[in-house]
Amino acid sequence: MIDWKNWRHITKLDPDKILRPGDIEDIATSGTDALMLSGTLNITEENLTLLREQVKEYGVPMVVEPADPSAVLYEGIQGLFVPSVLNTPDITWVVGKHQYWVKKKHNIDWDIVVPEAYIVLNPDSSVAKVTKALCNIPVEEVVAYATVADRYFKFPVVYIEYSGTYGNPDIVKAVSEVMENSVLYYGGGINCGEKAAEMGQFADTIVVGNAVYDEGAKALIETVKAVK
Amino acid sequence: MIDWKNWRHITKLDPDKILRPGDIEDIATSGTDALMLSGTLNITEENLTLLREQVKEYGVPMVVEPADPSAVLYEGIQGLFVPSVLNTPDITWVVGKHQYWVKKKHNIDWDIVVPEAYIVLNPDSSVAKVTKALCNIPVEEVVAYATVADRYFKFPVVYIEYSGTYGNPDIVKAVSEVMENSVLYYGGGINCGEKAAEMGQFADTIVVGNAVYDEGAKALIETVKAVK
Repeated sequence: MIDWKNWRHITKLDPDKILRPGDIEDIATSGTDALMLSGTLNITEENLTLLREQVKEYGVPMVVEPADPSAVLYEGIQGLFVPSVLNTPDITWVVGKHQYWVKKKHNIDWDIVVPEAYIVLNPDSSVAKVTKALCNIPVEEVVAYATVADRYFKFPVVYIEYSGTYGNPDIVKAVSEVMENSVLYYGGGINCGEKAAEMGQFADTIVVGNAVYDEGAKALIETVKAVK
Repeated sequence: MIDWKNWRHITKLDPDKILRPGDIEDIATSGTDALMLSGTLNITEENLTLLREQVKEYGVPMVVEPADPSAVLYEGIQGLFVPSVLNTPDITWVVGKHQYWVKKKHNIDWDIVVPEAYIVLNPDSSVAKVTKALCNIPVEEVVAYATVADRYFKFPVVYIEYSGTYGNPDIVKAVSEVMENSVLYYGGGINCGEKAAEMGQFADTIVVGNAVYDEGAKALIETVKAVK
């Protein structure tokens, strides 16, 4: 298994968005600890495979975070980060998809699976809409979910997800103070070194996604430098 | 922490039901590995405390399985077995009660907490009605839930719960064949040595409850002998 617990910086790539070949080289050599292939909409085996082919020549670890059992890839990847959304009333995203996946696929390589407890906090994000996550909750509710994830379920990863917008550092700080077992991920709206540094104070690992597409690889390199 | 992983036989006592003093002595000296205070209806701190007082003079380990955050006792017990029901559409019983509990109670002793993944299979049971569990599911669905519990969530306990009726040994056998990490509990309808032996072939631990009230301590002793 890869040494994912010591990653400080993950670059999240969305197979549904277009990267230029030069960007891919810049990303892969930026110092980011891993490339995570992820996304909520329109993930298919085809576009995941295409992206994997584009990045595989660089040595940086590549992992997949499937949004759905139909979007799980197994070949040529070093990890399978499988989310469970805790702050949703829809059981589908907590355990339903997982049960369906296991039922359909009998030879899952569990050694590469890293379960993630998602707490989704941007109501305008695709992931919030798809999962019907209850995003407008006070900090003590977020902390309670994170504590349940850390102590009761013992999730390897607790993931504070503001996908598409920059989150509230006070919430990430409050969560960081109760973590005992889980690695704390923060993702959402990090598009410069300052924001990377701010969230990187509290999160063990920051995840940078849209900045790659919106601002280019140069912004990504700044976020790597800020946390390393 | 108590050596709960090696228990073969648990006696589940319901604080809502009446035991005669003689029964309590017979139960506590039956060879059962632990007494579990549990129940779905009308559990209060008062009746839990009363039961605890009745059994505490015997050395057998006593654990509590709260049906609700309001029914959690902390003093004088060796373990807190906290269920999460996987086969329900109602998020309350998967993670909701847990989050509420953590929010209200800040000094939980996590060292004594043993998380249990419940798969509830008797539609007529109180636990099925309260949790709205989807009980009429084929064996492959049960096995898939159990696999998710064992491999993805890594629950210490997977609990096949037929509360109030004797279950299908083929289902328990099928689940036992996929368990890799979790300890497999079976509970429901065990009221004699034969049934204890049958389910005890597949489950690591059998849980005997109603027999104590319906048939008395003698039936309980038979179930202990059958699995030891």
